[in-house]
Amino acid sequence: MPWSHYPEIEEELILLEEFIQKNIRSRNQLINEAVNDIVQSGGKRLRPAFVILASQFGKYNRKKVIPAAAAIEILHTATLVHDDVIDRTKLRRGQVTVSEKFGMDMAVYVGDYLYTKAVLLLAGNVPEKKLGIIAKGVKAICEGEVDQYQHKYSIDTSVFTYLKRISRKTAVLFGAACALGADIANCSQKVAKSLIKFGFYYGMAFQIKDDINNYTKTQYEEEKPVGNDILEGIITLPVILGLRSKPDLKEDLQSFLNKRGNATEEEAAHVIELIKESGGIEQSRTLLNKYIERATRELQNLPDNKHRKAFERIVGIL
Amino acid sequence: MPWSHYPEIEEELILLEEFIQKNIRSRNQLINEAVNDIVQSGGKRLRPAFVILASQFGKYNRKKVIPAAAAIEILHTATLVHDDVIDRTKLRRGQVTVSEKFGMDMAVYVGDYLYTKAVLLLAGNVPEKKLGIIAKGVKAICEGEVDQYQHKYSIDTSVFTYLKRISRKTAVLFGAACALGADIANCSQKVAKSLIKFGFYYGMAFQIKDDINNYTKTQYEEEKPVGNDILEGIITLPVILGLRSKPDLKEDLQSFLNKRGNATEEEAAHVIELIKESGGIEQSRTLLNKYIERATRELQNLPDNKHRKAFERIVGIL
Repeated sequence: MPWSHYPEIEEELILLEEFIQKNIRSRNQLINEAVNDIVQSGGKRLRPAFVILASQFGKYNRKKVIPAAAAIEILHTATLVHDDVIDRTKLRRGQVTVSEKFGMDMAVYVGDYLYTKAVLLLAGNVPEKKLGIIAKGVKAICEGEVDQYQHKYSIDTSVFTYLKRISRKTAVLFGAACALGADIANCSQKVAKSLIKFGFYYGMAFQIKDDINNYTKTQYEEEKPVGNDILEGIITLPVILGLRSKPDLKEDLQSFLNKRGNATEEEAAHVIELIKESGGIEQSRTLLNKYIERATRELQNLPDNKHRKAFERIVGIL
Repeated sequence: MPWSHYPEIEEELILLEEFIQKNIRSRNQLINEAVNDIVQSGGKRLRPAFVILASQFGKYNRKKVIPAAAAIEILHTATLVHDDVIDRTKLRRGQVTVSEKFGMDMAVYVGDYLYTKAVLLLAGNVPEKKLGIIAKGVKAICEGEVDQYQHKYSIDTSVFTYLKRISRKTAVLFGAACALGADIANCSQKVAKSLIKFGFYYGMAFQIKDDINNYTKTQYEEEKPVGNDILEGIITLPVILGLRSKPDLKEDLQSFLNKRGNATEEEAAHVIELIKESGGIEQSRTLLNKYIERATRELQNLPDNKHRKAFERIVGIL
């Protein structure tokens, strides 16, 4: 059960699941099938948990929070479906992706469908102003993904470019999830500000961790090949920092990237090994810890209750 | 100039263009390029004109109407960009499509970006309730497109299935454009109802006309190959009705469709000729006229003013 991660809000997360199931149905059977596959594929429901937890710091209103939390998860799922189209991903969360099972074409529409469902849920339950914040979040995601796509195979990505990209791609939506929860619960401005900052820093840490895991976890743990990012030409923090400490890496990496996915398995394994040995992973952990610290510091500005403890535990698992 | 079609609202449409240009900019240069290409490629601005004209039947409020009309056009453009991804369309409005020029991947994000921009404009300018109507419209478009995609190459499409599909794919958005205009202008319920029905019937007629043109207009006029629909395996009204009057057509058509795009140019020309000779086009015109009549009848329920005359003229051009 995904919600066993957050015992403090278990009851709310069960309601969330029911709400999502009920609200993603379509008149079209094929859409239903595709949507069920992806929505039920066992995501951790991290973003909706952030909406729910944030809204516990004010006047909790289940009737408004659950639809908003569901909308954030559906929105996130929509972006995953479209990302899988772009990246030609075949497996996600250990399951065949919509684009692989139903075709790229269906996946484009299924993403649009889910996005629209999210807008519908938000339109009915969230004040207009907040809807703008969410839409800005999605716009940021698009810009972050396009930026990543544009810089594929480009060895000269800077740490600054990388951080800007992941802030758009990932952190902004975590911040928006907190903003949404805080707004619905009428939190004070001070509390809302800390929650949003916390969400943002957590999102940064979350993505850096994800990019580290791509090199350190086994295929089984990650449900995708080790070093998948570099195989797809995506330059992430471990590589950027690795190139800094070991400039020698550049030549091997460049000739690997020049092959644009046509390198042999041995060549791939070799370049992944070089990245691992470059020290880039260890340095990425240092930056990861900085963002974890910042997130944790923001939590100190919040009232000390079981919901703050839940956030602390979620950060602790990173 | 696209707005020369609607002299009654020329001034508003000039403001609309300015508003669209100003509001589609992105921080990402590549997105900007792609978006400029598609938005400036000379669409007829039919849907925003419907928003503006509908809102003239109540208390006209330029500050609210222009952003809403812009949002509808941007939304429509987003669906075109994604459709071009699905259909692998290379030319639209005589220009290279986003998916052809920038790649399918960029096109997925550019569509998402435009969709989000539209939501942002609506969120800031339209009451929540109306936003729901628009989102339902987009949901209908997705379902219509998926239905069309599912029934590609399927010769047994019925008139009923076809009408349901084009209502979702096209007519619902024209109805929503009128609903939006009427709502912003606080039109009476009676007037609003007639405007929405008019928009819907117009949309049905518009799509049937488009599907007829696909067989009757030259490549130059349509800016896409004659018979493009059947070449892509899309069964539209002229074919459905043609098969009814000339059951002999079935065998030739089926063997053509079985080749799934691998037929020779001669075979394609032959099957298009058979469709033209089947009588399906003439019968489609009869159904087209029925929808034109229904649309025109709805207009009679509206006050007789220059804006009603503008709608009458727009229907007359069909």
